[in-house]
Amino acid sequence: MSSTMDLPKDELVQSALNKINESFSIPERSNKEKLALTCRILFDGGHDSGLAGQITARGSEPNTYYTQQLGLGFDEITSDNILLVNQDLEVLEGTGMPNPANRFHSWLYSARSDVQCIIHTHPLHTAALSMIRQPLIISHMDNCALYDDCAFLPEWPGVPVGNEEGEIISKAIGDKKAILLAHHGLLIAGASIEESCLLALQFERAAKMQLIAMAAGNIAPINPDLGREAHDWLLTKRRSEIGFEYYVRRALKNHPDLQR
Amino acid sequence: MSSTMDLPKDELVQSALNKINESFSIPERSNKEKLALTCRILFDGGHDSGLAGQITARGSEPNTYYTQQLGLGFDEITSDNILLVNQDLEVLEGTGMPNPANRFHSWLYSARSDVQCIIHTHPLHTAALSMIRQPLIISHMDNCALYDDCAFLPEWPGVPVGNEEGEIISKAIGDKKAILLAHHGLLIAGASIEESCLLALQFERAAKMQLIAMAAGNIAPINPDLGREAHDWLLTKRRSEIGFEYYVRRALKNHPDLQR
Amino acid sequence: MSSTMDLPKDELVQSALNKINESFSIPERSNKEKLALTCRILFDGGHDSGLAGQITARGSEPNTYYTQQLGLGFDEITSDNILLVNQDLEVLEGTGMPNPANRFHSWLYSARSDVQCIIHTHPLHTAALSMIRQPLIISHMDNCALYDDCAFLPEWPGVPVGNEEGEIISKAIGDKKAILLAHHGLLIAGASIEESCLLALQFERAAKMQLIAMAAGNIAPINPDLGREAHDWLLTKRRSEIGFEYYVRRALKNHPDLQR
Amino acid sequence: MSSTMDLPKDELVQSALNKINESFSIPERSNKEKLALTCRILFDGGHDSGLAGQITARGSEPNTYYTQQLGLGFDEITSDNILLVNQDLEVLEGTGMPNPANRFHSWLYSARSDVQCIIHTHPLHTAALSMIRQPLIISHMDNCALYDDCAFLPEWPGVPVGNEEGEIISKAIGDKKAILLAHHGLLIAGASIEESCLLALQFERAAKMQLIAMAAGNIAPINPDLGREAHDWLLTKRRSEIGFEYYVRRALKNHPDLQR
Repeated sequence: MSSTMDLPKDELVQSALNKINESFSIPERSNKEKLALTCRILFDGGHDSGLAGQITARGSEPNTYYTQQLGLGFDEITSDNILLVNQDLEVLEGTGMPNPANRFHSWLYSARSDVQCIIHTHPLHTAALSMIRQPLIISHMDNCALYDDCAFLPEWPGVPVGNEEGEIISKAIGDKKAILLAHHGLLIAGASIEESCLLALQFERAAKMQLIAMAAGNIAPINPDLGREAHDWLLTKRRSEIGFEYYVRRALKNHPDLQR
Repeated sequence: MSSTMDLPKDELVQSALNKINESFSIPERSNKEKLALTCRILFDGGHDSGLAGQITARGSEPNTYYTQQLGLGFDEITSDNILLVNQDLEVLEGTGMPNPANRFHSWLYSARSDVQCIIHTHPLHTAALSMIRQPLIISHMDNCALYDDCAFLPEWPGVPVGNEEGEIISKAIGDKKAILLAHHGLLIAGASIEESCLLALQFERAAKMQLIAMAAGNIAPINPDLGREAHDWLLTKRRSEIGFEYYVRRALKNHPDLQR
Repeated sequence: MSSTMDLPKDELVQSALNKINESFSIPERSNKEKLALTCRILFDGGHDSGLAGQITARGSEPNTYYTQQLGLGFDEITSDNILLVNQDLEVLEGTGMPNPANRFHSWLYSARSDVQCIIHTHPLHTAALSMIRQPLIISHMDNCALYDDCAFLPEWPGVPVGNEEGEIISKAIGDKKAILLAHHGLLIAGASIEESCLLALQFERAAKMQLIAMAAGNIAPINPDLGREAHDWLLTKRRSEIGFEYYVRRALKNHPDLQR
Repeated sequence: MSSTMDLPKDELVQSALNKINESFSIPERSNKEKLALTCRILFDGGHDSGLAGQITARGSEPNTYYTQQLGLGFDEITSDNILLVNQDLEVLEGTGMPNPANRFHSWLYSARSDVQCIIHTHPLHTAALSMIRQPLIISHMDNCALYDDCAFLPEWPGVPVGNEEGEIISKAIGDKKAILLAHHGLLIAGASIEESCLLALQFERAAKMQLIAMAAGNIAPINPDLGREAHDWLLTKRRSEIGFEYYVRRALKNHPDLQR
């Protein structure tokens, strides 16, 4: 028996977290760069649905945010073509127009000062799940960053161009980090671009796993205490940064146009 | 509260449509070029089924249309190898023979003067759906361009080389833009090549979502008024052009032989 | 109304077949070359399952056939590394050993003088279908080359190294062109390499469509007369050659090592 | 009738095994190199789930093993960045930290002297299957290397950082080569890196086939005697080496950075 093979779990968890916090150096990146990389990462992760979907992050001034141009796919976004807009969707920096469906982002940023980055996409499996009007089920360790942290909006308020959807979604998500929108898609409201990116990847993977599992049998629930423990274990700032950097390296390999 | 965050939805919708109509410049392309690009876009979108499927667009003379050669896959079509044929499938321009199954296109062009481009393909999920003889269900915002605009032919009249199928399909589709043909595939009858291309992509994606959702649970219907609102929001000439151009850029990346 | 838009179907079918027979020129290829191309085509078509699967074609001498070496994947086969063996699996030309599971091919070639090429693979969906011990259902036009032409062996006789499996399979397939082997895979016994290759592609696609359709609902049968009509329409020598050449062109693009 | 077409099966099986043992020459590779190749092979085989999963092999000293660095994906592992650690997860060679979830590997190596390589991953279909809390079903010949050789842990003990999971898993797997961990993933405990790699590939493929089959119907069991016969036929040292080398060649093609 070695020296640590009889230590209790909470001590090992704490020691692992400390080690993770000390052991990595993360490259500096601007928010625009992180946002463009997030678009590419999500494109590779199956979040492409033509020109649908918007990704935003707060700008340095209040009530401003960065977003992609309407008419470009996620695979075309670079830090050079990202727009800075205000909450009325007027363009402050850059050329082109934002997606008019960005309107509900303004509402959510107003309601939630903790949110730095909103990702709203319609990936295939999330979209298919949204058609059977059932909440996202978290029953696998890998997806526990969303455990007890994903709301559900069972009604579809129609084309998301009005202010109504902003109010409805802001209310429905409450203080959670994610929401499944019936007949529509997913929304992530994260504490950083890195966290939102990883949660969006995880959401679509969780939806795919849920649909595959439901087609074959009945999903068994996990122990709620262990679900919450895993949630907190997975959702640390450092883990998000380390995980994001890994997907950045993959995106840079897959998208040679980014390697300037 | 900002200046537009209390405007009513219809005003925002109108203002967004105006902005979209003004904000984009679209490259000029010939019909042959658009048709070849459509073949590549659909190939990438899963519409490949060997040598099955035909895509046609009206020629400049009455009762003529462009189509691809039999024996070439969608990934091989260029504006240089597209044929111009008459409604008896006689070749007017180009070399090679058209698919004899093109015959029902003649019937549909006769019956529907609004139709500029017909796409008929057998993509995997549409084909699988056609085996359970159930109509396409539109229950997701992204697919609403087909909401209340997709007919269903429950009987399969056999190999589509005769005139009978032309009559049957023309009657079954009525004035709609799409039809699901049992044991066979999809047909799009659109107002432009761009519109038909996007509707074909959307059809197969909708079929895939439907099959995945049905395997896992029961699909919930959407509010018909909102479905029709979304239909009209998605199906504008300008949106089709913008969306088509995005897929054109993807196709040009994926098919280097097109980059002359 | 044009001149051919009132012709009866049988006349149009015959005229189309004639035109197809006249309109194409097919490159000359040796059997070894066709066999290597078939391996690559099937690899791209999802027939890869590691080192499992054998593809054979009759040699010019009686009781000899070409086959791939054990230890190479389908993506590694070239006309240079194909073996010629006799029915005891002794190597007559080339170096390396054949797959010992080739034994049942000898039995089938003995029993069926019409068979020129046998393909036996375990692609994913065929393999999954074989686990629920149900026959292949043909309910889509594209798959009708297998309509009423695919047998079913519901019992699995174990590792296919003995002579028993040769007897069992030869008896079970009868005079059909294909058989689904429970807990195992597919077997095609075709009149040419081209035909066998296309039937193998079609088999796996049909299995995939069947599994997707069964997960979502009940498959509707097609009219048997129309199924047989489509079978004969699809299964002509010329169509097989034209279809095979298309997949050859794709394989040559996907496998640059073949472009000597 | 040829000379071997009336031989009994056991004679043919023995002769085939002998021939396989004589007929191949396998390149020499270090354990570090094999481990890095295994990471790439599993990445290509769908075992990627971000930064989750650990692969280890015994080092030359007792109570030491090789493992990958935390923070790198399977597609980034090379023999140069693999760590040597002791059973307390202290780094003996290399820089970086191991995944703290490696702890249960120490327990399993202690309990099972026959085990040379442990692979623990969360591939999509295994993960989906783990959510419905049902054992892996082996009902296809290709997967028989796991027949009667895969245990099941129905309870999820939470984040695998503590010593508890080491005890639980070691006990649950007993003397089998594999285990399915509910709400978590798969674990392979093999006699060599080659064997573990192939079993891991086979596990995920078996899980995918099971889920597809269960969605469409009821899986039929195979004859246990034939299952065990196939198990022993597939699971020989030589077959593992030959199969592994095939996947190595594929990985080297897919991962040009490995071709130094």
